[in-house]
Amino acid sequence: MNFTSLHEFVALAKSRPKRRIAVAAAEDEEVLSAIYQAYLQGIAEPVLIGKTSRINVIAEANGYDLSPFQIIHEESPEKCAEIAVNLIISGNADILMKGAISTAPLMRAVLNKDGGLRKNDLLSHFAFIQTKYYHKLLAVSDAAMNINPSLQDKIAIIKNCTEVFIKLGAEKPKIAVLAPLEKVNDKIQSTVDAAMLKKMNLTGEISDCLIDGPLALDNAVSKKAAEHKGIVSELAGDADLLLAPDLNAGNILYKSMMFLSDGLSAAVILGASAPIVLTSRADNELSKMYSIALAASLV
Amino acid sequence: MNFTSLHEFVALAKSRPKRRIAVAAAEDEEVLSAIYQAYLQGIAEPVLIGKTSRINVIAEANGYDLSPFQIIHEESPEKCAEIAVNLIISGNADILMKGAISTAPLMRAVLNKDGGLRKNDLLSHFAFIQTKYYHKLLAVSDAAMNINPSLQDKIAIIKNCTEVFIKLGAEKPKIAVLAPLEKVNDKIQSTVDAAMLKKMNLTGEISDCLIDGPLALDNAVSKKAAEHKGIVSELAGDADLLLAPDLNAGNILYKSMMFLSDGLSAAVILGASAPIVLTSRADNELSKMYSIALAASLV
Repeated sequence: MNFTSLHEFVALAKSRPKRRIAVAAAEDEEVLSAIYQAYLQGIAEPVLIGKTSRINVIAEANGYDLSPFQIIHEESPEKCAEIAVNLIISGNADILMKGAISTAPLMRAVLNKDGGLRKNDLLSHFAFIQTKYYHKLLAVSDAAMNINPSLQDKIAIIKNCTEVFIKLGAEKPKIAVLAPLEKVNDKIQSTVDAAMLKKMNLTGEISDCLIDGPLALDNAVSKKAAEHKGIVSELAGDADLLLAPDLNAGNILYKSMMFLSDGLSAAVILGASAPIVLTSRADNELSKMYSIALAASLV
Repeated sequence: MNFTSLHEFVALAKSRPKRRIAVAAAEDEEVLSAIYQAYLQGIAEPVLIGKTSRINVIAEANGYDLSPFQIIHEESPEKCAEIAVNLIISGNADILMKGAISTAPLMRAVLNKDGGLRKNDLLSHFAFIQTKYYHKLLAVSDAAMNINPSLQDKIAIIKNCTEVFIKLGAEKPKIAVLAPLEKVNDKIQSTVDAAMLKKMNLTGEISDCLIDGPLALDNAVSKKAAEHKGIVSELAGDADLLLAPDLNAGNILYKSMMFLSDGLSAAVILGASAPIVLTSRADNELSKMYSIALAASLV
């Protein structure tokens, strides 16, 4: 099962019961716009938590009819995050979305040991990117959360990502562990980690996916490039997911596809007991809507 | 002075006396093809060093007339590299090009303390990339040589790159020091290095260029993204050069623009007393020719 368009997530989300999305500090014009579009598309039922008066001003200015929405008044962004997290814990919401709150306090509420949303070993960022330069959606992780992931962290990131593919009905995602070259060089940790991850996949320690690496990006995404270099790999030119060496590389890879190519993305934070939508100001409207649709497809 | 097309280097190289290019271990079909095209374009006068019989077989099979070329017979690739380096030292060649020889022995000849081509503190890879997703050529360094550059190494890379722009008649290249975000975070070395490089530029310790950083890629190449995030920088959206945090990120950035976008590139190794052309099998014909043209424009 290959995904070729982010719009498939909109269709998928629409085909299922509407997911309730708790927006922490919803008094943000761009977030409200994205959530309203998602509501109109029939993919999400918003629960807005935040400054009611400010939310209403934004809604009026933009002509949004918020009467079908549940709105919970709360001034403090930190408390908004707690309320949103509690809605998910109590089964009254399915997805968490970041509004006018910084990432740090939102994550504190998520990771709170007493009543947070901890589930897997680690939270990680996951993005599907649609580009005409690849024959299917290409996933990238981690472009935004983990600064310098250890081998154990990379195993946790792979687990988070693999769960996405399985939830979407895809089998054994092909994961290319990126490095600057194919040879293991002990001066380049990314090549060492990649070789170990591949080995752990072969022995079954990491399952439900097919891992190859170290692979340079050209050989991960271009069969022609791989053939040219004599690289034999089931993944070459057909990777579903690019596992970045670290945040520097992951962030630059993601942004290169978005700002120096024609990329469109859908991104979520994985590893908590609910998907977290954490869009950035730099994302365009469509990407924000796709992120909500992807999150709705995962619960 | 803005470059918008790699073809400008072909025009520039053509307008000047032909540069002599010493090809070490020239018995390589793709290298010979690139060098022959460059010769036909009038931008390089090849000196081929290598296995004469093999060179002639390739030339005959492809219909190349090598009669105007100087050919020096040598079986050993290592000795070919030494001969090529000596041709440059003696003033009988201007550019070094890698043929059927690994990078390591070629670099050993270049870096040889007794009679190599050492000049600046460090050798570094430099690429100009042409893409319809940017309003001018975008340079990237270092995508291929320096694994984990220290602050001092980054200063040396910036010096190498700045020399390129100055040689091409451009003034004060705008250098964006990339990181995953704009805030300095002592857990992310790329942000710390970037802040120090910016500071050293402000105090004049690093001159002839305009440095800003840390900058995430989106804000370095998109004025809209920077404005959206309230980032005020003379560089935002107008960087001439992206300085990558390390090899992982640099290599992935370069390859993303080449294999997940529409990029065409011209690349050279800088820092030696002559430009070094070190094309890869994965490069297309046009990129190889542009690399030779760029090298010819730098001497």
